[in-house]
Amino acid sequence: MTPTTRQECAALDAADPLAPLRDEFVLPAGVVYLDGNSLGALPRSTPGRVADMIEREWGQDLIRSWNDAGWWDKPRTLGAKVAPLVGAGPDEVVVGDGTSANLFKCIVAALGLSDRSVVLGEAGNFPTDLYVAEGAASLAGAVQRRVDPDGPGLERELAAGDAAVLLLSHVDYRTGTLRDMPGITRLAHEHGTLVVWDLCHSVGAVPVELSASGADFAVGCTYKYLNAGPGAPAFLYAARRHHASASQPLSGWHGHARPFDFTGEYEPAPGISRFLSGSQPLVADAALEASLDVWAKADLALVRAKSLAMTDLFLARAAEVGITSVTPAEHARRGSQVALIEPEEGAGYAIVRALIARGVIGDFRAPDVMRFGFTPLYLRHTDVWDATEALHEVVRTGEWRDERFARRDQVT
Amino acid sequence: MTPTTRQECAALDAADPLAPLRDEFVLPAGVVYLDGNSLGALPRSTPGRVADMIEREWGQDLIRSWNDAGWWDKPRTLGAKVAPLVGAGPDEVVVGDGTSANLFKCIVAALGLSDRSVVLGEAGNFPTDLYVAEGAASLAGAVQRRVDPDGPGLERELAAGDAAVLLLSHVDYRTGTLRDMPGITRLAHEHGTLVVWDLCHSVGAVPVELSASGADFAVGCTYKYLNAGPGAPAFLYAARRHHASASQPLSGWHGHARPFDFTGEYEPAPGISRFLSGSQPLVADAALEASLDVWAKADLALVRAKSLAMTDLFLARAAEVGITSVTPAEHARRGSQVALIEPEEGAGYAIVRALIARGVIGDFRAPDVMRFGFTPLYLRHTDVWDATEALHEVVRTGEWRDERFARRDQVT
Repeated sequence: MTPTTRQECAALDAADPLAPLRDEFVLPAGVVYLDGNSLGALPRSTPGRVADMIEREWGQDLIRSWNDAGWWDKPRTLGAKVAPLVGAGPDEVVVGDGTSANLFKCIVAALGLSDRSVVLGEAGNFPTDLYVAEGAASLAGAVQRRVDPDGPGLERELAAGDAAVLLLSHVDYRTGTLRDMPGITRLAHEHGTLVVWDLCHSVGAVPVELSASGADFAVGCTYKYLNAGPGAPAFLYAARRHHASASQPLSGWHGHARPFDFTGEYEPAPGISRFLSGSQPLVADAALEASLDVWAKADLALVRAKSLAMTDLFLARAAEVGITSVTPAEHARRGSQVALIEPEEGAGYAIVRALIARGVIGDFRAPDVMRFGFTPLYLRHTDVWDATEALHEVVRTGEWRDERFARRDQVT
Repeated sequence: MTPTTRQECAALDAADPLAPLRDEFVLPAGVVYLDGNSLGALPRSTPGRVADMIEREWGQDLIRSWNDAGWWDKPRTLGAKVAPLVGAGPDEVVVGDGTSANLFKCIVAALGLSDRSVVLGEAGNFPTDLYVAEGAASLAGAVQRRVDPDGPGLERELAAGDAAVLLLSHVDYRTGTLRDMPGITRLAHEHGTLVVWDLCHSVGAVPVELSASGADFAVGCTYKYLNAGPGAPAFLYAARRHHASASQPLSGWHGHARPFDFTGEYEPAPGISRFLSGSQPLVADAALEASLDVWAKADLALVRAKSLAMTDLFLARAAEVGITSVTPAEHARRGSQVALIEPEEGAGYAIVRALIARGVIGDFRAPDVMRFGFTPLYLRHTDVWDATEALHEVVRTGEWRDERFARRDQVT
């Protein structure tokens, strides 16, 4: 039952088994933070962990930490900590580089495993996915074609039989639509197409089952729901069955079978390490490790249930003031964010700015989407209630029409 | 005059105008650190700078820091701080990604500017350069051929007239040989070949004059002489004249002309930003910024003079115990490191381990090179003297033959 009063929300908070995890985070006073789908909040343990890495591992132990502090293996040990969050084996995930570079690696690797030359991209995907697919396809002598993954066109495009690889976001970055990973992966495979999943908006937001879904490749970032800090290193998943045969072109020495032989010829490592390139920013890795250690305490089923309860509440309360949602009502098709649209020109941007002025932080994505992310590790049901109270005020009073909320001087 | 006693070294230290900069660094007690060419020492300001970025910019200001703390522009503002260290304009350098990814971008960009299809690589270059050149060339329908850049073969290979791009390290990672950047660049251009310089072992070690040399592209890391921390973000230089015409395939949204329009079509930014891909690890960027602010206080001519004095001393003292150097004696051909070779099987590795046991930290590079790096910002002439005293002891007494120094259990 979706609560209808703040008191009911408080009762849900009191009974929430995830509630103690909120204390693991630093949250600024007076803020309801609904932008954890863009930049996650700071775990309380992160500053200390990073300081130790800098002052002891780097400052005192210096170069010896490549061995003694496990720096050399961080892409793999951190990958193994990401693995349970995405339903993968510990030897199927590595951490390193950014999402864009990892997308590039996966697309080129998938093209190399196929004798076809079409990359099926997603119309409306996060731009970097489209741009990188374009760059990778063009360099590899392939072409990108786009499809609406939520419509009947997907099956038709796959049936054309020319797609080497399908690149989809598991959760749409604007609408929050969750895709059926097992179903779409199966369909693609039936038509001889490999699948690369972009998990940026789903990892830590919804259960992800890469292995059980038969996914081929996946990438994801760690700075949204995983709370590893702005621009934190991304991860890459490759199904074990592709390790021996897949190759990727950013073939730096960390991907070599015997990197410390310093031989002149590249020989890819036998396992997931072949997807690595060069040295990774260990200071940023330390922040990621702290955040993954918080995630290790979270029951993902509880996270999912709380996320749905919070988005149900937010959607119901937004409807009360007549604001349209483009986020699916159906639980099975919803991620952990809500996207609202107010059709009047400039309204969406101004409403988001007016909410921020009241301490309710969401964001705006051109051309017209107001985005609100729900992060069960550190948000309370009462926070969601308070945010909707602010939304009601801003909309009912026309507060957002104040000219100071119209200025487009913010990049995000 | 190269000093011949510790007392003379102490006199040099007393007169050293760079001496105050040593206090800007944290250095472990009892250590002479000659591995700053692999991992630079920790600047004293770094922990505080990183803590402020994490606790205030991320923890308190959260998503707003993309605007208010200048996160979005860090690749450019940090690039402008690297620029004076490499003789480039502030709008010709961006910081981000790793060296391998940046090499890939530069090689593909250079191939795209040429109608030729050979990448001329350097036999004996750091392996990642060779491996990435292989990966890039192969994907772009080109081939890599290798040449010894220090022999007469270079001119012959260029004269063949089929090389689109020449990829060279400015300083050789093993021998420390410094290449003639203006001369080689001119020669390559005369033969219609573009040049990509790898500055990993020269930035902060020797004066670098990219613009004055007419260089086309360059990459470099920031975790060696620049002291930005293990695996810190790399940088990329592209000469202004190539900005409008060069394109690179890791075409993420940070390289777009109008990234916040979220359009589906990629349009590269007009300037250096087109070489960017995705979001960068801001925690690591904070450490880089702290280290670059130390570098802003250093006179590069003084750094070079002190570096040569220190390598002169180390070479002279190594010769006294009969150890062979493969580092050029000629100043114009020497970087800021010394490479020694002891031909007996296993001796090089064991001598390095024995020196480390005495607190003198250098490193070993297969198959037989003992490397010692000299970092004028935080090393004293007396440190160099003390290191050579240890070298004398280890070699004269045969201490390195102890079996505990033979075990190859260390990755670096």
